[in-house]
Amino acid sequence: MTGQAGEASTRRTARSKITPEREAELYEAVLELLRERGYEALTMDAIAARTRSSKATLYRQWGTKGQLVIAALRHGKPFDIEDIDTGTLGGDLREMTRRTGKAAGEDTELLQAITHAARQDEDLRLAMREMLIRPENEVLERALARGAERGEVDPGNPALGYVVHALLGALLARPLIEDDYADGPYLEHFLDSVVLPALLLRPENPRP
Amino acid sequence: MTGQAGEASTRRTARSKITPEREAELYEAVLELLRERGYEALTMDAIAARTRSSKATLYRQWGTKGQLVIAALRHGKPFDIEDIDTGTLGGDLREMTRRTGKAAGEDTELLQAITHAARQDEDLRLAMREMLIRPENEVLERALARGAERGEVDPGNPALGYVVHALLGALLARPLIEDDYADGPYLEHFLDSVVLPALLLRPENPRP
Repeated sequence: MTGQAGEASTRRTARSKITPEREAELYEAVLELLRERGYEALTMDAIAARTRSSKATLYRQWGTKGQLVIAALRHGKPFDIEDIDTGTLGGDLREMTRRTGKAAGEDTELLQAITHAARQDEDLRLAMREMLIRPENEVLERALARGAERGEVDPGNPALGYVVHALLGALLARPLIEDDYADGPYLEHFLDSVVLPALLLRPENPRP
Repeated sequence: MTGQAGEASTRRTARSKITPEREAELYEAVLELLRERGYEALTMDAIAARTRSSKATLYRQWGTKGQLVIAALRHGKPFDIEDIDTGTLGGDLREMTRRTGKAAGEDTELLQAITHAARQDEDLRLAMREMLIRPENEVLERALARGAERGEVDPGNPALGYVVHALLGALLARPLIEDDYADGPYLEHFLDSVVLPALLLRPENPRP
């Protein structure tokens, strides 16, 4: 993977001839195809056909399928939870699960489509984490730190290190077990039943 | 999908000419290729080459790639946790995570390889659940029921309905967040930090 920075910057120059609207449209089409077919079966031919581009153009501007998918992942913004700060840790976590649950179908499908290939492709794995895992993780870590500062949770509670694993896990596990995505109500119930009790926080809106 | 039962029984007759050893070897090769390439990019050509079979034989005996992969999944036994009964719920869950963790790499890879395709292919999805999800789930449900009978856990605790989601979730989530599978020690720590506290069971071997 040497020389990629140079190639990428050359490509960026070439790509700059495309309008931002056209670029966004192309990335959307790539993500759509990715969700439909999975990374391994996605071909440049299919991308060219769907986006009405020539394959030569795609190769010239993005280099490889991997680079194009990574650019599309980086471009996409699956959800925006950055502004969440309700004043309590329970409230923050609840608002995060609500918003995450809204995009659960699309996000889970995208993760499922690239997870296996990402095992063998480090660039793809890093882009997946950068785009789909890290932003949510950082917002979550900040909310947990605020909760610890306010004394709502013991900073030594070992569950603090697993909140992101537990919530991402619920998102990934549900469609394998049941014929449904982990939507907002499911994630909220999981939060109340598993995550908040493990953090020794009380659910604010206990269910009957 | 009509007429499949009849076709399957015809194929079973044809398949019976293969020795069980050869059949087991072929299924192992299919699972190996599946883990390497993912379901969508797996081709009958590749299976024929790896197993030194003719494509005509594969199609005659299994019908489709999906049928062959399902047969291989049904044949494989990823782990054996059926006999676990330590006398306490905490002990049972700990022993399950230990054994599950041993095969975490192979099992996770197999799940990752078929999860996306299983969304669109009902037969594959049912075979995946039958082979890779349901056996573990049933053993877990029996252990939870014994724990409730012994009074170790409140039968009304809502976390009881999420133990399988939480543990399967940890298995799926860890390799996305970190460069590692959810091995035995990881799953045990997740159990002690998240699952047992949510069940209001005390960890038997608390960590420092």
